[in-house]
Amino acid sequence: MKNDLNPLSNIRIVLDHTSHPGNIGSAARAMKTMGLSRLHLVEPQRFPHAEADALACDARDVLEQAQVHSNLDAALAGSVIAAGLTARRRDLQNPCLDVREAAKRLVEIAATQQVALLFGNETYGLSNTELARCQYVISIPTDSAYTSLNVASAVQIMAYELRMATLNLTPEATDTAQLAPLEDIEFFYQRLEETLKRIQFLDPDHPKRLMPRIRRMFARTQLEKEEFSILMGILKQINLFVKPKVD
Amino acid sequence: MKNDLNPLSNIRIVLDHTSHPGNIGSAARAMKTMGLSRLHLVEPQRFPHAEADALACDARDVLEQAQVHSNLDAALAGSVIAAGLTARRRDLQNPCLDVREAAKRLVEIAATQQVALLFGNETYGLSNTELARCQYVISIPTDSAYTSLNVASAVQIMAYELRMATLNLTPEATDTAQLAPLEDIEFFYQRLEETLKRIQFLDPDHPKRLMPRIRRMFARTQLEKEEFSILMGILKQINLFVKPKVD
Repeated sequence: MKNDLNPLSNIRIVLDHTSHPGNIGSAARAMKTMGLSRLHLVEPQRFPHAEADALACDARDVLEQAQVHSNLDAALAGSVIAAGLTARRRDLQNPCLDVREAAKRLVEIAATQQVALLFGNETYGLSNTELARCQYVISIPTDSAYTSLNVASAVQIMAYELRMATLNLTPEATDTAQLAPLEDIEFFYQRLEETLKRIQFLDPDHPKRLMPRIRRMFARTQLEKEEFSILMGILKQINLFVKPKVD
Repeated sequence: MKNDLNPLSNIRIVLDHTSHPGNIGSAARAMKTMGLSRLHLVEPQRFPHAEADALACDARDVLEQAQVHSNLDAALAGSVIAAGLTARRRDLQNPCLDVREAAKRLVEIAATQQVALLFGNETYGLSNTELARCQYVISIPTDSAYTSLNVASAVQIMAYELRMATLNLTPEATDTAQLAPLEDIEFFYQRLEETLKRIQFLDPDHPKRLMPRIRRMFARTQLEKEEFSILMGILKQINLFVKPKVD
């Protein structure tokens, strides 16, 4: 690793609602072979489990140190970027990034900041709500005749590309801006939504797709810490000047 | 695919002495997601097997069409290049190629000719004898703290890189020479060894590492069909002029 940077230590793998414990074990092994160690699990169906241990082989330490969460927010806390893997194309989502290009961008950020990679359930993948939480949506270029990559295999390919990108990382590329953590950005969305209701721009009975569109826009922006502060300041000022709506 | 080239249809995956049927199923799924379909098995411990079917999911057609062989020669027949995956470095082997560079070279050849990729047993990998049969030795850059990649995961990464290389293939790059098939090259080695004994250059009681060194040299050369004919012609002439040794 050049200049003692180890982006891999700043990258967490988040397995969301995984059904099969074997896949969790295989994912842990896939991670460790590529130098990743931080595993987060959101409501796994069965964990800990003997099958996970068996398939992890000598990566059982990754399982033992895995953090189990009851919701996605907790699993993402502290990260500045969430990137979701998906096989499907969906309306109104961020443009799908190629896995190689995504790995390059992610390790540049991970040189100094926390990054989360999100893998959905074996059958359902990530929901639209979950994908809306991701600044990057990453697609692995599977064959059109059979797109159903096993979740641990997807982790393996992603981890491999992250390792390759890390080996090719130049110190100059790591001089990235300090981004706002995801929990701050969620807080901003909540405050913005409240404000939009107060100024009657957002009709709670007919919200349409306003908030998803705003999320999509800011996901592309990748808010820096200072920008977050500016936006929160603006919202605060607006709310000072808007009279409370009389019910 | 540009210009209707589909190198992936000319690439076979050879799983050598695989112990766990689940790995065969997972490898089949990994292959199909990346557009590979030709699976060859050399003396699998258990096959067909319910666990292989279960893990193949919708890639059971790859398993059904898999060819089972009793030896490596049969599995390689018709290929012009054999490339072996290994985690270990060994003496007197061909230089280890990076998996990405190897994939690029292999799809260029596979645009018009047959290529075989060889994966060893889960515990032992490929033997030195098996690696000596490979023109390319490929290493996946695992973390030094844990190099033990699952065999199906190795297939997944290799298949992914082959697919990426195919998507980036230019027609100019596919204008490669017609290489001699591996069975011809084996035949040449046999005749050469006999000849070297006849001319008493190779002492059968003290063969040292002469033949492995010669194999290594010709593996780098990548003999073309015409060159094979020339070499066989030379051996034939030598044998015409050398008197049989009196026992």
